[in-house]
Amino acid sequence: MIIRKLDQVEKTGVDIPGVKGITKQLVLGSSDGVPNFSIRVFTLEPGGHSPHHTHEVEHLNVILSGQGALMDESGAANPLIQGDFAFVAPHEVHQFRNTSETEDFVFICAVPKEYE
Amino acid sequence: MIIRKLDQVEKTGVDIPGVKGITKQLVLGSSDGVPNFSIRVFTLEPGGHSPHHTHEVEHLNVILSGQGALMDESGAANPLIQGDFAFVAPHEVHQFRNTSETEDFVFICAVPKEYE
Repeated sequence: MIIRKLDQVEKTGVDIPGVKGITKQLVLGSSDGVPNFSIRVFTLEPGGHSPHHTHEVEHLNVILSGQGALMDESGAANPLIQGDFAFVAPHEVHQFRNTSETEDFVFICAVPKEYE
Repeated sequence: MIIRKLDQVEKTGVDIPGVKGITKQLVLGSSDGVPNFSIRVFTLEPGGHSPHHTHEVEHLNVILSGQGALMDESGAANPLIQGDFAFVAPHEVHQFRNTSETEDFVFICAVPKEYE
């Protein structure tokens, strides 16, 4: 078994098209021996967002702190706050945004380990 | 996409041998269309614990509130507090315990959907 605290996990930048102000932490993943799913944590700074995109794998999300939104295909914003859970199905167009002007928006994004 | 708040999710008792004082919430699972992994939340009342057991699937855990311990095969206690992450590998003997005398111990336990 492995027990891990978030502040022990290295933060890396996310430099892909459509991303603004995001860092990533791979909290539990392939290198820990997970058989199926990996846990990543993303921190979006104020103004930060992910691409408005789609992919073949699902997301399982848990909001850890801050305030944000999960945008759907039409661009409609579903608000997210600490303690909320979200499921984004495979091939569903989506985008995460930090909607606070002062606070980071931090959330778990679990995915199949091949996509970690 | 689905957004869900924990207090919208029904709590059910867990009545299996070795369990004391646990309720379960299936926050995101097969009935929501998850392709691979399900998110469950367990609440252990003071004195509550899971069985000291093993199974063929892994756990991915995130501690939401309270104080507890993840016991290993030898019975050694690994303390867990809010914000901690844990990984229990397949076939690893383990037990979750609430170590507070006053507060609930609440944690996410994500598993392959077949085990939800």
